[in-house]
Amino acid sequence: MELLKKRVRSEGRIIGTDVLKVDSFLNHQVDPTLMQAIGEEFARRFKDLGITKVLTIESSGIAPALFTGLYLHVPVVFAKKTESRNLDLETYAAPVHSFTRGQEYIIRVSRRYITNKDTVLLIDDFLAQGRAIIGLLDILEQAGAKAAGAGIVIEKGFQKGGSLIREMGIRVESLAIINEMSEEGSVITFSDETK
Amino acid sequence: MELLKKRVRSEGRIIGTDVLKVDSFLNHQVDPTLMQAIGEEFARRFKDLGITKVLTIESSGIAPALFTGLYLHVPVVFAKKTESRNLDLETYAAPVHSFTRGQEYIIRVSRRYITNKDTVLLIDDFLAQGRAIIGLLDILEQAGAKAAGAGIVIEKGFQKGGSLIREMGIRVESLAIINEMSEEGSVITFSDETK
Repeated sequence: MELLKKRVRSEGRIIGTDVLKVDSFLNHQVDPTLMQAIGEEFARRFKDLGITKVLTIESSGIAPALFTGLYLHVPVVFAKKTESRNLDLETYAAPVHSFTRGQEYIIRVSRRYITNKDTVLLIDDFLAQGRAIIGLLDILEQAGAKAAGAGIVIEKGFQKGGSLIREMGIRVESLAIINEMSEEGSVITFSDETK
Repeated sequence: MELLKKRVRSEGRIIGTDVLKVDSFLNHQVDPTLMQAIGEEFARRFKDLGITKVLTIESSGIAPALFTGLYLHVPVVFAKKTESRNLDLETYAAPVHSFTRGQEYIIRVSRRYITNKDTVLLIDDFLAQGRAIIGLLDILEQAGAKAAGAGIVIEKGFQKGGSLIREMGIRVESLAIINEMSEEGSVITFSDETK
C-alpha cells in the first residue's frame, strides 16, 4: 500500500536493528484518514469470506480494526491485556510474550463475543515474532471459531512471525512488509523493492 | 443521542448501583457504525472551534475519538496507560485514579504530539468521577495547549464528575446522561426523561 509505505518512510524512526517507531500516525498519534484507507484496503482483500467479526488486541490494533469492521459491516472485538473488574469472568485467555515490552501478558476475550459460529479476521498493527497473532489464534481455537486470515499494517519481514503464521496455513495480508531497516541513515527497504 | 440511548437501554447491563457494562458495543466489542455516528455527532457539536487535535485515553476512548478526528479532519492522540520502552522518554504524565479498576495509573502523552499551538478536544467513553478528564486537562496544561471541551459518550449524571469538570469552565457534551440506574429491573433513566 503505497500511501502507507510513504508515511513509514517519511515518519518512521528506526531504533537499533529492530524497533520502528510510527508513533506519529499509528501507535500514539493516529491519522484517522490513513486508518480509513487501511480499513478499506483490508476489507477489499478479505471480502467474500463470510467474515462475521474482526478481532484485534488493545490498543494500537483498534484503529485499523475499527475501519476494517466498518467496511466489512461487522463488529470489532478487542482482546484486553489486563484483568479488569468490568470484564466478564467468562473469558478465553491466552498468554502473549511481548518482545517490545520485554514481558508476558494475558489477553482475554469474553465468550459472549467470539463463538463457534464466527468466522474471524484478525487485525494487528505490527507482525514481528508473531506472538500476538498466535495468542489470538489460540483464542479462536478455544472458541471453536474459524480464522479467515490476518491483516497486518506493518510486517517486519526480517523476523520470523510472518513465515510462522503462514506455515500454520493462515492467510496473512500485510500492507507494508519491511525486509531490511537500518538506524544509520534511516534506511527502510520494503519487500517489493528488493528484487 | 437517541441511537445511543437505545443501545444503552437494550444492551447495557447494570451491576450494583454504579457499574454499567456496555461491552457489546463500546468497551470490548465495538460497533463501528455506531462509533461513526458518535464521531459525526461530536464533530458537529464542536465544529468551528479551531480544534487541531483530539485527545483520548487508551483503550475504550479510541473508537469514538477516531471517528471524531476523522470528521474534524485532525489527528487523534491516545494517552498511554503503561510505561512502554517504545514510548518517548519525553512525555507529559499525569496520575489518574480508576474507581472501576480500583487503582491509580499514570497516563502519558509524548511532547511531540500536543504543544502550546494546539486546541484540543478531549473524548472519552465514560464520565463518572471525572478523574480521566482531569488527568487529560493536567496534560494540556503542562503542554500549554487550549482545551476546546470534552465529548463524552455516556455520562453518569448521578456521579460528580460532570459538574466538577463543568465548574472548571470546560464545555462538556455528553451524548447520553444517565440520571438514575438500578440493577433490579435494569432501569435506566436518562437526563432528558426525568422531567
